[in-house]
Amino acid sequence: MSTFSRFTPLIQSLPATVPFVGPEAIERNRGLEVKARIGANENGFGPAPSVLRAITEAALETWKYNDPENYALKQALAAHLGCQPQDLAIGEGIDSLLGQIVRLVIDPGMPVVTSFGAYPTFNFHVNGFGGRLVTVPYVNDREDLDGLLAAVRRENPPLVYFANPDNPMGSWWDADSVVAFARALPETTLLILDEAYCETAPEGSTPHIDALIDQPNVIRTRTFSKAYGLAGARIGYAISTPGTAAAFDKIRNHFGMARISTAAALAALEDQAYLGEVLENIRLSRERIGGIARKNGLVPLPSATNFVAIDCGRDGAYSKAIVDGLMEHGVFIRRPGIAPLNRCIRISAGPEADMALLEEALPQVLKTL
Amino acid sequence: MSTFSRFTPLIQSLPATVPFVGPEAIERNRGLEVKARIGANENGFGPAPSVLRAITEAALETWKYNDPENYALKQALAAHLGCQPQDLAIGEGIDSLLGQIVRLVIDPGMPVVTSFGAYPTFNFHVNGFGGRLVTVPYVNDREDLDGLLAAVRRENPPLVYFANPDNPMGSWWDADSVVAFARALPETTLLILDEAYCETAPEGSTPHIDALIDQPNVIRTRTFSKAYGLAGARIGYAISTPGTAAAFDKIRNHFGMARISTAAALAALEDQAYLGEVLENIRLSRERIGGIARKNGLVPLPSATNFVAIDCGRDGAYSKAIVDGLMEHGVFIRRPGIAPLNRCIRISAGPEADMALLEEALPQVLKTL
Repeated sequence: MSTFSRFTPLIQSLPATVPFVGPEAIERNRGLEVKARIGANENGFGPAPSVLRAITEAALETWKYNDPENYALKQALAAHLGCQPQDLAIGEGIDSLLGQIVRLVIDPGMPVVTSFGAYPTFNFHVNGFGGRLVTVPYVNDREDLDGLLAAVRRENPPLVYFANPDNPMGSWWDADSVVAFARALPETTLLILDEAYCETAPEGSTPHIDALIDQPNVIRTRTFSKAYGLAGARIGYAISTPGTAAAFDKIRNHFGMARISTAAALAALEDQAYLGEVLENIRLSRERIGGIARKNGLVPLPSATNFVAIDCGRDGAYSKAIVDGLMEHGVFIRRPGIAPLNRCIRISAGPEADMALLEEALPQVLKTL
Repeated sequence: MSTFSRFTPLIQSLPATVPFVGPEAIERNRGLEVKARIGANENGFGPAPSVLRAITEAALETWKYNDPENYALKQALAAHLGCQPQDLAIGEGIDSLLGQIVRLVIDPGMPVVTSFGAYPTFNFHVNGFGGRLVTVPYVNDREDLDGLLAAVRRENPPLVYFANPDNPMGSWWDADSVVAFARALPETTLLILDEAYCETAPEGSTPHIDALIDQPNVIRTRTFSKAYGLAGARIGYAISTPGTAAAFDKIRNHFGMARISTAAALAALEDQAYLGEVLENIRLSRERIGGIARKNGLVPLPSATNFVAIDCGRDGAYSKAIVDGLMEHGVFIRRPGIAPLNRCIRISAGPEADMALLEEALPQVLKTL
């Protein structure tokens, strides 16, 4: 294949890859139709009617670039969160922010601490900037705060990643433990505290905004992709000190945000009543998923997210067979990529029609295995 | 200010900046309202009614991530362009693709050739990866192909940037000259041939798709931001060989594209009749801008783009005073950043209401100077 011959040595060492295979690719590659899209932790309850109206209105202005300073969204988020606009950086989803953060602190060969089996896209970005991943095993399906801290003390990394609640397991820590962990870190280690799922987490598990706002080595990342139902809009944000948040301005794609997406996020933030309804729907759907699992002899794990990890009691080959088998019925789910987490499957909350398909398909799939 | 202490040395050396000040920021900072938004080479004629319908329809699916493989858009673009889907890479506007290309080939200290006064966002990305800019002056307000080639031969850079048509001057080369330039480059130098404005360019100035499609050291970049009127949607694409195009998969934000934006781009590509209308409107608007300039004793330069650079016949202080003065009347325009190009102002094509405001304000501004 005819390829430019002078990519950097780092680039030449990287594989061309897509970290997650999308459901559309599965449909194309296997000739199957996704009927229940409950595999990517999207939010099938969808955005608010007020958001749909805002999108239609903003469509008329989509010939304009978005405000590169994201002024209105920062103002609205700051008011909502109880922080200052200058504490915030906006990006095209948390994925984009993760890539930028890695670039800010990692030169090739530097260690980066994360949990073994945690978010693969973070690892993709670490590899992409030549970082050296140092992984800490989960303990009882939770990220191990003590283990992460020990690894930080041993390796002196510029960067450590920790998600609360966790993806792919749905587990979580209480806010006090998270704050204690953040405070125990050396100031030369930057913590990414990924809170993509904080809206669905139980009371007392997300640190108060003030608890970490003065710590320049902590960046909390959040998104409109999950509880707000706007995964396709690509709006994530980072919370830190003004000094740390300003560093994104050194490297970000200033005109990268879609204008309609920004309008959608503003409308979503304003409609907290709708968010409340969705959170209740997600809670009920988690219970529904748990019930379906138990009825089939599987063990749902407690979840603070918009998905449920289900322990299938055997190895990764078994869980893979369940994932592939469900897709034959049009039910798209995923599973953790790495043992021992991959004894589980992972199913996203969704509307009742999706749950009914799951309920019908799962016993049929299990029977064939 | 409290800032994380361990950013990489390169990051610490960079300023926190926004390459272009958006019109929204000008409104906020100066307490003025933009009435004619003709400064950012957006397309005030807006997207097609068919595109607006596609956006409203796609809003219902914005809870879903976009297909990370951009399959449908690549298929449609390939059919439209007469190339293969695997020749293409999709990104969040050309700006995003420029950043990725720099990252693919530039290690700190490496030379990068561009024209002195050409696209600042490209320079932003080169600086962001530690590249060393080597600039070649414009000749007669055109990028100098011979000069660029001489600089390449002297510096052996991994990367050279050339826009055809050019921004900010609106000038262009014929296709044969562009192809000859591309073929004369050493295979160890990657050419970014930025064709953001190719749709508005005269017949014979854009090389045929086949002319460069086999050259792995050429990446052509295009966008839906200009002629298609979708600047706020952030859809750019790159055309190269499959091998070179695949390199983007090593580093891109795979889930970075907005789903509604992709639907909008697909609809826009399908509605070539509307594109034809817009191109005619842009042509007429360029003439209108030229007429207004001449009536005020200024000299419009020939333009292959959706804007007109106007020679104001004096220095950068004078053109700046015109830009600032027009803004007092609500007319937002820009000007090139660097002498001698900055003797000009740059005005984007737009609807008649914008032109009327310009026509009214310009003589008033000139009178005060």
